[in-house]
This record gives sequence, structure tokens and C-alpha cells, in this order.
Amino acid sequence: MAVVKTDLFRLSASQTAELIRSNHISAQEYAHALLERVRERDPQVRAWVYLDEEAVLEQAQKLDQLSPEERGPLHGVAIGVKDIFLTRDMPTRYNSRLHAYDGNAAADSAAVSVLRAAGAIIFGKTATTEFAAMTEGGPCSNPHNPKHTPGGSSSGSAASVADCQVPVSIGTQTGGSIVRPGSFNGCYAFKPTWGTISTEGVGRFSISADTPGFYARTVDDMELLSRVFQLPAPLRTTISVAGSKIAFIKTHIWPNAGPGTVAAWNDAQQLLANAGAHVLDVSMPDEFARCAEWREIIVSEEARAAFMPKYREDKTKLHADIVTLVENAHPPGRAAILEAHDSVAQLRAQWDRFASQYDIILTPSAVDEAPEGLESTGTAIFCCMWTILHVPAMNVPGFRGACGLPIGLTVVGARYTDMDVLSAGKAVGKVFN
Amino acid sequence: MAVVKTDLFRLSASQTAELIRSNHISAQEYAHALLERVRERDPQVRAWVYLDEEAVLEQAQKLDQLSPEERGPLHGVAIGVKDIFLTRDMPTRYNSRLHAYDGNAAADSAAVSVLRAAGAIIFGKTATTEFAAMTEGGPCSNPHNPKHTPGGSSSGSAASVADCQVPVSIGTQTGGSIVRPGSFNGCYAFKPTWGTISTEGVGRFSISADTPGFYARTVDDMELLSRVFQLPAPLRTTISVAGSKIAFIKTHIWPNAGPGTVAAWNDAQQLLANAGAHVLDVSMPDEFARCAEWREIIVSEEARAAFMPKYREDKTKLHADIVTLVENAHPPGRAAILEAHDSVAQLRAQWDRFASQYDIILTPSAVDEAPEGLESTGTAIFCCMWTILHVPAMNVPGFRGACGLPIGLTVVGARYTDMDVLSAGKAVGKVFN
Repeated sequence: MAVVKTDLFRLSASQTAELIRSNHISAQEYAHALLERVRERDPQVRAWVYLDEEAVLEQAQKLDQLSPEERGPLHGVAIGVKDIFLTRDMPTRYNSRLHAYDGNAAADSAAVSVLRAAGAIIFGKTATTEFAAMTEGGPCSNPHNPKHTPGGSSSGSAASVADCQVPVSIGTQTGGSIVRPGSFNGCYAFKPTWGTISTEGVGRFSISADTPGFYARTVDDMELLSRVFQLPAPLRTTISVAGSKIAFIKTHIWPNAGPGTVAAWNDAQQLLANAGAHVLDVSMPDEFARCAEWREIIVSEEARAAFMPKYREDKTKLHADIVTLVENAHPPGRAAILEAHDSVAQLRAQWDRFASQYDIILTPSAVDEAPEGLESTGTAIFCCMWTILHVPAMNVPGFRGACGLPIGLTVVGARYTDMDVLSAGKAVGKVFN
Repeated sequence: MAVVKTDLFRLSASQTAELIRSNHISAQEYAHALLERVRERDPQVRAWVYLDEEAVLEQAQKLDQLSPEERGPLHGVAIGVKDIFLTRDMPTRYNSRLHAYDGNAAADSAAVSVLRAAGAIIFGKTATTEFAAMTEGGPCSNPHNPKHTPGGSSSGSAASVADCQVPVSIGTQTGGSIVRPGSFNGCYAFKPTWGTISTEGVGRFSISADTPGFYARTVDDMELLSRVFQLPAPLRTTISVAGSKIAFIKTHIWPNAGPGTVAAWNDAQQLLANAGAHVLDVSMPDEFARCAEWREIIVSEEARAAFMPKYREDKTKLHADIVTLVENAHPPGRAAILEAHDSVAQLRAQWDRFASQYDIILTPSAVDEAPEGLESTGTAIFCCMWTILHVPAMNVPGFRGACGLPIGLTVVGARYTDMDVLSAGKAVGKVFN
């Protein structure tokens, strides 16, 4: 592989790992290239809330000194970390005035620990919204157009990867915080099955919904990270588009789709049909109609438990919406909470049976391309259901909206079919792009 | 209320709070009394893994300086904290060689944050087993007999409260880690409904089972802590024994009950019948027979995700059983995991309906009194089902085994009936004692 060293920052994680492994480049050379890219782009994109160049280079230097047998599967790969994951060498601030001055954690969060042990360079902390729970954005912007939002709450993790400042990053999703920014920034964005990656050391929003996941510019990189985290093994050997039964599920949210998503939807159907797929328009069973409502009850009840400690500590330093959540003047009540938990639990099993009828399932990622303005990170309505159903979901980029900004579609699957969703996303992504 | 100041350490949290509120004693006086008790008893009980006398007195001094309107509901109350909750002023070591030298956390865990904001003195960190997941005990011993185990994994939290070194403490339960030590040490031990207290900043074992809870010597103290954590409001106004339908549920585990638990069971039935209750022997529906098996599948799968980061960091510093858990040569497989999750989810709803038929429900807390020896903290088999069903469960002390050590029984209820379970435990506890 010929390496144009001025373009190192454009390499994928898999390519980088291979080049470092084969001694074509060093981790330090690579880190320098990324830092240069960040220096050039950060004044506009503002993806980073903490980045210590010297600390990055020091990590790279230490990695370069390791013998081949000491090197892990992510040796030398730089990764961005959403600023709600605890890190032992950087502060974790949750975009909160309450934690604005907190120091380094005593120990890494579980996910960062896995990445560090695999040889990754923990590059820096990426911009998020307050406690990854609010939709108030800024100053992080969309790398395709600084006047547009990158989405949230994993704003900086998505923007930094899409902008080639790092090849991969981690984020979390409670509503649509991984998939939506993936669609807005035009990169792959993967939310695995709930419970497969430990959330120890991650800022809590809703225990039943919070799910860590990844950003990357290639599905190969998603697979690399998924193997490092030992995500569930694939059920099928290969998934290809030609001859596959591909379900397009608009869901009950479809009336909210904007012209960009409608056009992407139609284009995707045409492209996949042309590639030999059996494209099917499929409706969700009626039972799923209340899923969004139940999800809202569960998340708001759990958010109350999550944010009550912050509220008690100093409510004057919290966003008014978090205060409202904790004070909750109209709590749903015991019967409604139990109905929500038990109904969603039934839907999870029903969804798995439903999903097993198709080879690939596609659904919208977002209402449209990234809206103008940094004040709001947009709406998660197309993603929420998949999060509370605990199923793997990946944004696949490939389309553009009226302003020329990216739009993606989501591949979803049954619980614990994470690697199959990645394969499906790879097959579909090739056709889209 | 007349105060014999030499016996301050015997006061309950509610009594202490009242005496400090009414200026009969200061937080510093109280802290001194507890520290003296600890100095006398710690060489035998070994409940504390971190306790800084000066820091305790400094907290008390600061609390004494607060004006009445700045004082919280736990003002001056000392509380022990299981050493798996992050604390900003003490290290958190999880009884792990991996974290043996870690420093203070950047921020408190959610539960500690709530307690601190309520005015509690965060007294010290209590002994636990490795990552609260192993049953290997020592050196913490049972305050009733140092040759016997205090149980685990919330060993020091139970022992310190039972031994009047602190009035209340917090622990966690994934199997039987709150209720069993409560039974062994002879104090009240309460595991609330899953999800009602945030586990942010708590060492992870199993996301679907881990539940923070409390130890106390009176139910009044349990109610005080439950109000501070805003646990679900009571459904019923009062619960009394006379005239109540009290279900005694042996469960499928009953053949494991030792003579001490069998005798306590029979005595309890007699005492409650004499007090005017309608005592009923009730069988669990057959569907619950596999609950323990499903719980085992869920917890071992989630423990793999929880401990994989530690394993990757340095597996030579982990207990062999944790290594085995992570390496899992015979994983249950996707179908078994999904069956376990979905079946247990159905049982949760079924249990709520079943429980609603009775005023009070009693079930065993442990196999028998605390076994001799500190090597093993005993078995959790009587508690596991209630943990994975997410229901509130409280050990009520009142009986003794062949060696004269305490034995308790557990009051359980439907999900989100936490305050009712406390009321039931209070009514039953009065009859037992």
C-alpha cells in the first residue's frame, strides 16, 4: 500500500492499524498528522472540549516503544471520546456547569479502559449537550457547513470523525444521540444491542435506554471496534443485496419525514431494486404505535432518578429542562410506569420475531438533513423506538438534502444480531455510495 | 428526650437527626462517639476499609456551622458506604488489586451525592468482596461472633450498622448482597425496586440486577433514607398485622433451608397468627421455577461485559472466578439469553399481580444463621429471584440459630411498592421482637 503521508488523517482505523503494524508509519507520525488536521479545522468545527496535544504525542510515543507482541488490535488508532465517559487522564465535564472544574477520574470508564487496553490513543474529549440529555447545541458545528448543527448529543464524536480529525470515536444514545448525528454529518454511526457494552463510568440519563456506540467512516472500522468489544457473533456468513428481502419500514413517525428523507427513501429503494434486491414496503404491527409514548414514560422516570443527585447538589447550575424533569409536577404514576416497562418488554420479543422475516431492514435516521442553526441539535423521533427496543441500529450515509448536507438511512435488526446489522450496512452502503 | 451521652453511638439515625436538630447534641459530639465505638470494635469486626477520623470530624465541624435553614434531612447523620460507590474525598477500591492504589474520584457517585447534599457525614468506606461479585470473605467478621462471616458482598455495611458503629449504611445487591448480610448480622436490610436509585458511579456487576439499598437498625431509619431518595410513595395508608392476609412463600429453594431458618419460619407463623394475622402457606406459580436459571444466564452474560474491561487491563490481578466469567468457555448463546430476558420480564408482571392478593408477603432471607469461617460469605439462593424480578425486599431480623446468631425473614412486595414493604416490615418486626 502506497502511503501519501500528507493525507494520513484521511486513513480509516483499519488502514492505520495495518500501516503501523507493518512499520510503514509510526503512531507518532500518525498522531502528528491528526493534530495538524485538528489545528486547521477546530476553529470552525469545535468538536473538542478537551485535547492536550502533548498528552496525545506522549501516548503515541509510548505505543511506538511497545514490541510487536505487546501491541493490541487498535495499536496506534486515535479515538475521540464523548465527554460523558470518565477518563483517568482528562477531566469529564458533561457540558455541565456543575462539573465544569472537575479533575481527572480515578479510573477510566469501562469502554475507555477496553480501548486503551487495545492500544488506542485516547485522543481527546468531544463536545456534547448538557449531560447528553438536552438538545441545546453549540459551539460545535457541522463540518459540511458551519451554520448547521452537527446534531447531538454525541455532537463532537460525529463531527470529528466525519471531518477526518480522528478515524473513530465513541458516543452514547438514549434517544437518537448516536444515529442522528451520524446522519447529519454523513458517517457510519452504530448503536449496538443494549447491555453488550458496559456503561460503568458513563454519565447516566436512563438506565434502560443509555447505550454506548461508535462512529466511523467505514464499516470495516465498525467491525474492528465491535470485535474489540466482543459484540455478539454473526448469525449469518454473508449478507448481500442481490436476492435479499429488504424491508423498508416507515414506522408511525413517517408523517414527520421532510423532503430530504423522503427523497433518500425513494432513491434508496430504486438503487437497491436496481442492485437485485426484493424491496418491500412493510408496516410496523399496530402494537408498536404506543412505543414512543412508553419510551417517554420510562426515560423521564429514570431521568428523574439520574438527575435528582445533581439537582440536590446545586439546581441553579442545571438547565431549566433538567430541573423540570426532576421536579416533575405530573409524574406518570405506578400503573403507567409498569405498563410502559412491561409493554416495551413484550415488544422487544415481538420485534425480534418480526425482524427475522427479512434479510435487511431499513428505516429513517432523521427527519431531514441537519437544520440550520446551532441552537438546537434536532429531533430524535425516528431513533427513539430502536433504542428502547434495545436493538442494534446503524446509520448508513449516502444521500444529500436540499442544502447539500448528508442524509443517511438506518439499518436495524433483532437483538444480538449486531454483526449482521454491520454486514447489512456494509452491503447497503456499497450500493448507496 | 433524655440523652445519656456515653451511649450516643446506639442512637438511630432518626433519633440522632432529631437531637442535633433540637441542639441537644452537635454533629461533632456525635461523630466523636461513633469514632470511639469504631476504635473499640474495629480490631475485631474490621468493617472499614477506609476511615479517616480527621476527615470525619472536619465534615461534622462544617455541618455544625450551618444555619438551621441550610441543614438537610440527614444533617449530622453518619453513613457507611460500601467500597464500590465512588467518593470524591476517599478512594474506591472494590476489594480489587486492580484498583488498590486508585485515588479519590473526581465526583461522588449518585447515591453518595444525594446523601451528602442531605447533610449526612460520609463516614468511611465499608468492606466488600472483590467487585461485590465474589463470595470470598475476610477479614471483616460478624459482630455477634468473630469466627462467623458477616455475609457479603455488603459485608462491612451490614456489620458496621449491626454493631452500632454507624446508624445507617448503603450497599448493593446483585444476588443477595444486601438481604443476606442483614439476616446474618441481625439488622434491617432493604433492597428497593430496581431503577429507583441511580447506580451511576457504582461498580458494575450486572446492569439488570445491580440495585443500591440501605442498612438500618430501625424501619424509621429506612423510611427516612427512602424519603431522601424519593422512593415510590406508599399505596396504602397503614399496614397492621391483625386481620392481615400474610402469605408465607417458601419458593422452589425451600429444600435448602437449614434448621435455623425452618425454626424461624415456624416461629414467625405462630407469632403472627397469635397477633391476629391470617397466615397462609402459599406456593409460587410453576412459571417461577426457572427464574433462578434465567437470572444466572442474565447475570453471567452481563458480568462478562462488566468485567471484560478489567480483564483486558490486567487479568493477573483478578480472582480466578472473574477470569473464568470473562473467558466463558460455554456461553449460553443468543436464544438462551433472549429467552432469559423475555421470560423474566413476563414474570415481573405476573409477580405483581400475584403479590397484590396479599397484605404482607414473607419469604426466607438465608439458608440459616451465618456459617462459621470467614472464607465464604455464604449463599444468596433465597434472594436472587427477588433481585432479578426488580421487587422491593427487606430483611426483618428477629430470630436466632443454633449458635445464637441472628436469622431474619424477608418481606417482599410488588414493584414500586417500596414504602408499603417498609410499613409491612415495621408491623411484622414489632411482632417478631
